[in-house]
Amino acid sequence: MQVELNRLHRWLQHAGKRLLVLVEGRDTAGKGGVISAISDCLNPRSCHVVALPKPTERERGQWYFQRYVPHLPAAGEITLFDRSWYNRAGVEKVMGYCSEAEYEAFLRQVPVFERLLVEDGILLFKYWLSVDQDRQEERFAERAADPLKRWKLSPVDLKAREKYREYGEARDAMFRATHSDYAPWTVVDFNDQKRGRLAMIRHLLERLPDVSVPEPAFELPPLKGKPGREQFRGGVRPINA
Amino acid sequence: MQVELNRLHRWLQHAGKRLLVLVEGRDTAGKGGVISAISDCLNPRSCHVVALPKPTERERGQWYFQRYVPHLPAAGEITLFDRSWYNRAGVEKVMGYCSEAEYEAFLRQVPVFERLLVEDGILLFKYWLSVDQDRQEERFAERAADPLKRWKLSPVDLKAREKYREYGEARDAMFRATHSDYAPWTVVDFNDQKRGRLAMIRHLLERLPDVSVPEPAFELPPLKGKPGREQFRGGVRPINA
Amino acid sequence: MQVELNRLHRWLQHAGKRLLVLVEGRDTAGKGGVISAISDCLNPRSCHVVALPKPTERERGQWYFQRYVPHLPAAGEITLFDRSWYNRAGVEKVMGYCSEAEYEAFLRQVPVFERLLVEDGILLFKYWLSVDQDRQEERFAERAADPLKRWKLSPVDLKAREKYREYGEARDAMFRATHSDYAPWTVVDFNDQKRGRLAMIRHLLERLPDVSVPEPAFELPPLKGKPGREQFRGGVRPINA
Amino acid sequence: MQVELNRLHRWLQHAGKRLLVLVEGRDTAGKGGVISAISDCLNPRSCHVVALPKPTERERGQWYFQRYVPHLPAAGEITLFDRSWYNRAGVEKVMGYCSEAEYEAFLRQVPVFERLLVEDGILLFKYWLSVDQDRQEERFAERAADPLKRWKLSPVDLKAREKYREYGEARDAMFRATHSDYAPWTVVDFNDQKRGRLAMIRHLLERLPDVSVPEPAFELPPLKGKPGREQFRGGVRPINA
Repeated sequence: MQVELNRLHRWLQHAGKRLLVLVEGRDTAGKGGVISAISDCLNPRSCHVVALPKPTERERGQWYFQRYVPHLPAAGEITLFDRSWYNRAGVEKVMGYCSEAEYEAFLRQVPVFERLLVEDGILLFKYWLSVDQDRQEERFAERAADPLKRWKLSPVDLKAREKYREYGEARDAMFRATHSDYAPWTVVDFNDQKRGRLAMIRHLLERLPDVSVPEPAFELPPLKGKPGREQFRGGVRPINA
Repeated sequence: MQVELNRLHRWLQHAGKRLLVLVEGRDTAGKGGVISAISDCLNPRSCHVVALPKPTERERGQWYFQRYVPHLPAAGEITLFDRSWYNRAGVEKVMGYCSEAEYEAFLRQVPVFERLLVEDGILLFKYWLSVDQDRQEERFAERAADPLKRWKLSPVDLKAREKYREYGEARDAMFRATHSDYAPWTVVDFNDQKRGRLAMIRHLLERLPDVSVPEPAFELPPLKGKPGREQFRGGVRPINA
Repeated sequence: MQVELNRLHRWLQHAGKRLLVLVEGRDTAGKGGVISAISDCLNPRSCHVVALPKPTERERGQWYFQRYVPHLPAAGEITLFDRSWYNRAGVEKVMGYCSEAEYEAFLRQVPVFERLLVEDGILLFKYWLSVDQDRQEERFAERAADPLKRWKLSPVDLKAREKYREYGEARDAMFRATHSDYAPWTVVDFNDQKRGRLAMIRHLLERLPDVSVPEPAFELPPLKGKPGREQFRGGVRPINA
Repeated sequence: MQVELNRLHRWLQHAGKRLLVLVEGRDTAGKGGVISAISDCLNPRSCHVVALPKPTERERGQWYFQRYVPHLPAAGEITLFDRSWYNRAGVEKVMGYCSEAEYEAFLRQVPVFERLLVEDGILLFKYWLSVDQDRQEERFAERAADPLKRWKLSPVDLKAREKYREYGEARDAMFRATHSDYAPWTVVDFNDQKRGRLAMIRHLLERLPDVSVPEPAFELPPLKGKPGREQFRGGVRPINA
């Protein structure tokens, strides 16, 4: 599938198309993992991962979508959002970080905003990664125990952990308001992360044209003379490996 | 070493320190690989990778360092430059993309500029990744043959390939002008990429304090009630994995 | 009216409101002049003038509104657009800088986009400054003759000059598509620029609440001791006036 | 002198030069006024005024000059700083907003930083606007009384008002550390603001080449047919002036 992702990216560049993928879902579901699986095999100069920090004071006084818009893909680009504007319908709703009025305004604006993007030609995909609570608990425990993963665990996560059911309800309300023909949600089961990653990437590839853009063959004519070896003049020498 | 990198990052955040790592070297040496090896295990919100595109027309009319400065690390941050201002002393010099006067002005300004950063407290490390030409040729051939790697190969690379010796000479001139007590170069042999990565990361870790910042223990009290399972109300259901 | 503008600005800041004013109209009508008349008497840290240059190559491959969105006002701010997204319905349409399809897509998207902003609470005003062609000709002649004004004259202006009628038709089509209850156009006669400016500012002020936000009285207690005089120690002395 | 400023700007654009003017001085001296006098008669697309707000939390953890660097002029541009990096040697020093160590580090770094800019070809001018305390008091009183000027008065100003002498001492220390051949200070007496403005602009013009760049003559061939008049089809009509 990595080969297919590369072919897809070449087609986007050739055709001047834009691909926008929103990755949402439960804590610990594996959003970061599937995003890396996609982006690691593509050219980082035109495949971007966007994981915005908390809004600043000034941003909180702006149009809600304002801080996301500058990151939308340009022609030939792939942009992967690790969480997205849907924060407002998930963590902000459940943890009470926005008012009821802001929440409802958001649900009204999203379909209109997304339709503008899709009508403009952006290829928009929205994935929600699901995981049962017992698997989530195992992963939280692992993060708490493993010094390599502990930075993934924040105080908000710990509070959110007790609200598994409320997150599910918020997700259902979000689907009701924002699942549309032109911007549908796709739910992928990430109880098994490896299978989840494969299912999601396959789903994405199947919905996009599989066009093989011919590449200029790279010819590497034989070098003149013997291949050189590193030689260092002056005091700087390689360290011992 | 991943554990040590995490400990290092926690110390930087705790002490408000800034770490800046410039990664330079031969084409195909493995700059991207060692940068991923470091950044993949750290929090992406405070460990940034910077790989700037070609300067725009307007940027070409600015102070040479101007477009790099906004990316310098803030307190608690690690920034890894995949290529850096040293472009001017490498590819630009060898391929004739800058004038002789610009090149010489650059070599004069670099030590002054870097001294400002170091005196301001930025922890600055400069690595140059070396590789012999026969290994480089093998890797170019691999990139040309492997559809997963072909995006790593640009027309400039193909031209540069014939200038192995000139790149070496440019590097030696660069070292003479910019290797200093406060901002020394470190050369690492990347003929074997895995050993090179380990050597470079170990070198970095050994030059920084190994301070263990105590973490708040994350407690995960038992959940009340039975763990929930994903249930979807409404039409959106998980796809088949 | 300057006092009222200041009062308005204080109210916006106090109430956390946002004011967005689009200034469009004929070449030479006096867009820059009325914008200066407003902004010159307000605090430049929260009253911004936006006059975007031509889009870059990368911006041309983005959602049309993308480069405007980052400039929308935050809470307490006034933003004045000297030309705006309506370029596409004016100069781009008349001079053929966009395709017919792009033009029509724009006219469809504008009302949806503006409704999002207005529903979000942005106070949006759209002014179109009118001028008859004989007055326009006089002003073009003045700009060509006056070395202080010559920078206002571009080669595009000279070509556009012959298309007075076409510009009028394009404006009428734009009004038909984008004049709405929630985002109406206001036409102001700028044949007499001074009267035009007054009419436009009065119109704006009358449509916004005239609320007097009480200010903390600034007390300036008498200084202790005699007022100081500038004294310069060292070699730097005032130049002769 | 406006004509000469326009001629200067045209030369900068023609020769690809960059002009950077730092305007510092006492509160109420008239920094904003002289900056407007210059910028109002120049093309705003290439003459920029920079008045930075207080640094954000993240900026405070960066290299001190980092937030100023992105605003340095590009080729053909004039940039006017309304206050500048010298804040640290003025208000921050006097009001205790930075530590003694930060202050001293700043005074050491400034000459090095400015030399980099000047060696790179930036035309750098530093003006300090002086005013005696009795005139300053009159202007403070005016600002407190005049609703049009009250936004110019901040609580910091009121506190700073009592420290006239300390500001003078800080300025002298700043001059001792940062007045150099390549980046000299020029003091201008602004007790009379009008004379001060003229003196400063004349000083600037006299130190830059007075080169007349020939302009393409703008020809305005006679229009074909009778000049048009504004006609509005549809419901939108000009408002009454």
